[in-house]
Amino acid sequence: MNHSIVRFILLKVLAIEGACMMLPVIISLIYHESQGVPYLAVAIAAVTIGLLGSRKVPEKTSFYSKEGLIIVGLSWVLLTIVGGLPFFITREIPSYIDCIFETASGFTTTGSTILTDVEALSHTSLFWRSFTHWIGGMGVLVFLLAILPMVGGSSINIMKAESPGPSVGKLVPKIKQTAGILYKIYIAMTVAEIILLLVFGMPVFDAVTLTFGTAGTGGFGILNAGIAPYPIACQITITVFMFLFGVNFSLYYLILIGKIKDFFRSEELRVYFLVVVGATALITWNISSMFDNVGTALHQASFHVCSVITTTGYSIGNFDLWPGLSKTILVLLMFIGACAGSTGGGLKVSRIILGFKILKNEVRKMLYPNRVKIVKMDGHTVPEETVSGVKGYIVVFFIIFGVSLLIISFDNYDFTTSFTSVATTINNIGPGLNKVGPVENFSHFSVLSKLVFTMDMLVGRLEIYPMLAIFAPMTWRKNKFSN
Amino acid sequence: MNHSIVRFILLKVLAIEGACMMLPVIISLIYHESQGVPYLAVAIAAVTIGLLGSRKVPEKTSFYSKEGLIIVGLSWVLLTIVGGLPFFITREIPSYIDCIFETASGFTTTGSTILTDVEALSHTSLFWRSFTHWIGGMGVLVFLLAILPMVGGSSINIMKAESPGPSVGKLVPKIKQTAGILYKIYIAMTVAEIILLLVFGMPVFDAVTLTFGTAGTGGFGILNAGIAPYPIACQITITVFMFLFGVNFSLYYLILIGKIKDFFRSEELRVYFLVVVGATALITWNISSMFDNVGTALHQASFHVCSVITTTGYSIGNFDLWPGLSKTILVLLMFIGACAGSTGGGLKVSRIILGFKILKNEVRKMLYPNRVKIVKMDGHTVPEETVSGVKGYIVVFFIIFGVSLLIISFDNYDFTTSFTSVATTINNIGPGLNKVGPVENFSHFSVLSKLVFTMDMLVGRLEIYPMLAIFAPMTWRKNKFSN
Repeated sequence: MNHSIVRFILLKVLAIEGACMMLPVIISLIYHESQGVPYLAVAIAAVTIGLLGSRKVPEKTSFYSKEGLIIVGLSWVLLTIVGGLPFFITREIPSYIDCIFETASGFTTTGSTILTDVEALSHTSLFWRSFTHWIGGMGVLVFLLAILPMVGGSSINIMKAESPGPSVGKLVPKIKQTAGILYKIYIAMTVAEIILLLVFGMPVFDAVTLTFGTAGTGGFGILNAGIAPYPIACQITITVFMFLFGVNFSLYYLILIGKIKDFFRSEELRVYFLVVVGATALITWNISSMFDNVGTALHQASFHVCSVITTTGYSIGNFDLWPGLSKTILVLLMFIGACAGSTGGGLKVSRIILGFKILKNEVRKMLYPNRVKIVKMDGHTVPEETVSGVKGYIVVFFIIFGVSLLIISFDNYDFTTSFTSVATTINNIGPGLNKVGPVENFSHFSVLSKLVFTMDMLVGRLEIYPMLAIFAPMTWRKNKFSN
Repeated sequence: MNHSIVRFILLKVLAIEGACMMLPVIISLIYHESQGVPYLAVAIAAVTIGLLGSRKVPEKTSFYSKEGLIIVGLSWVLLTIVGGLPFFITREIPSYIDCIFETASGFTTTGSTILTDVEALSHTSLFWRSFTHWIGGMGVLVFLLAILPMVGGSSINIMKAESPGPSVGKLVPKIKQTAGILYKIYIAMTVAEIILLLVFGMPVFDAVTLTFGTAGTGGFGILNAGIAPYPIACQITITVFMFLFGVNFSLYYLILIGKIKDFFRSEELRVYFLVVVGATALITWNISSMFDNVGTALHQASFHVCSVITTTGYSIGNFDLWPGLSKTILVLLMFIGACAGSTGGGLKVSRIILGFKILKNEVRKMLYPNRVKIVKMDGHTVPEETVSGVKGYIVVFFIIFGVSLLIISFDNYDFTTSFTSVATTINNIGPGLNKVGPVENFSHFSVLSKLVFTMDMLVGRLEIYPMLAIFAPMTWRKNKFSN
């Protein structure tokens, strides 16, 4: 293992996090809040250590899959540990495990919270909390790849490990440029949403923080009542942007370069759209008697369907009070998740599509064992390696799900609470049902459970392997094959 | 497709079912119950049609995987449809969909019921109901293979399709003999349990029917209070036999031929044992405060752990009142299921073991993409085909699970009820939690849901593919490749 490159990139990540922490410092100046001081202290420390430690570029900058996984896994652990410090120092979140949970929830764009009263936080901390969503949505290392020239051709290994989806491709031959394009699209859409929210009458601070939560598909709000108190036009804007941030960003690039036909030809996009429409229709029908008119029901349904499938987790009402059908649909959407290559979590729509194709293929294998089988997507043959990878991913996902469920059930909650708390954290959504419903929070869990949830959030955001790689003994074992 | 062999075997199956139905007729004579008449009528009709129709052996008796799947799938549908007729004609179960549900639950050894008052049934119907468990446990076609000389070397395709587990092997070179050995072990263990229950003071009728339920890992009882009213020695006997019937029968053959070392070397057996012991210990600790002494808690825990992991479904208490940890452990056990090659359902312990090995392998693939990966079990390399098959099976299983959950949630039950009702039927257990808990039943579901549950029970017992093969358009499509 190339230890020096791992250390080098981790220190760069630390410096970037420190730099990001200057933004809440500025917010503290605007609102005359003393909470800015700890942020400043941590920021200076992080930037200093990060820059001083990474002054010397390692001699060997090339590395392999293993280093890619380890760099990404450790970077996110580091981000979480350091990012939680200001909450702890300001005493706004008195327990450090809660700070860790909240920060992991931010960076992984989950949006689950241990806070019982969000409004008690300073503007400074509210801003930082939402900003972690925005940073985590596109990924810190993708950002690093976009701005730093140092890592060579092997940097695709980092990109692969941090970006969601069964197959990560380059948009343009150079990784650096690909990362740059993705970040530009991300920034443009973020700005567009902020402007629209301002136009529809949202205060600036709210517009910026809630847009961070939408863009990263995170879900942290700044009011105890979530998004409910805002004008309906703002809510609809957020609905639309949640949907948009759940689309594969590579598809937006297709639009930018004029390949609009290819955009609409994407199987994943079409299925994603149909699932959203179908789920919205079913839920609207199912909850219509709960509201004055069908319009309100449609508004509630579309908002929460987009919120859950994109794994954002915002709410404008308590869907835990809805009938069984609607709640079960929402739980199923939690597992589907958004499109690959978006900022959303979950299994990803493309894996679900491939799952159904695998089903057909397995039946075909049983019926005609000697015939050649291929799986197609968007008209192209999917490599056998990718199909096998998706099958493996789903198996591994449900094993981790089962093990997590077992550990957190030591808290002796009812099955719905236990099941949906794991589902909502591992799929990076935010709220679940019952004791983790939209008007509840995660404060009441034991320290052990909070640790498991933190792990699950990271496992979900990084698509399992970087986190498993950190804990796998074979990663750290020295043997003659290692390189 | 070789239609004549499919028809031939289906008619043989019909005749066997008719013959089996003579047993409840005898019971009706013993108890002077008029319900014997419809059983006799259906039996005579089935035997007559079955034997007359299958007088002529088809010219071509060879067939392929496709015919094997179709034969098994259609046989079980036929068994269910015909087996439910007497319940309907006697008016003991007034709705035919309920008859179908109850019969499918019997043959698939699920044990879920739509009856609110089991004790209202005649001895005749109680006997038939339990006897379907015994028939379904080892499989009808395995029985056919054991007694009929007609099907040649290709009969392994039937054996594969009806027997549970990721890889079905022959114990001896001939299928006919293998099937015979399995049935002899099955009968011997059944007789042993009946004798023990009689020794411990259980009435004959109860001992026979409850043994049928244990042997097939079914779970239908004959008292509304389940197994609770019987002496504790009987309950412990049932606990032990549930465990024993959950073991791979091929392992018992190893004992018979003196390879006792190989018996204990089985990875699946050891993991199965450890899971049972571990789950029992955890639940005993978790529920100990609910009972007078640890002994009672241990008894309750061991009984229900064996009942659920072997997918039997008997109960001696209402585990729905237990704390969250115990209930979640039981739900997890539902998915693990018994050993491959036993009469139990679920994913099977061997698939779970392979799942964990696949996890390790996938991490290894990520870390070292260019190294050769192999999965080992019992010291031997598992063929890549089997590993891929297990991965595919788990993916397909969860897709069917999700789709079933979506459809039955139209009944608008709470999430725990919906989730565990699908879990308990697709894994062939019996009871779930909440509205399908041990003291509840399935009568309150809609017709659509009951149909889905019936399908899921068959899907679970036949390990998915025979049922999917029936409904797959490609099975029935004529093309130049078909044979």
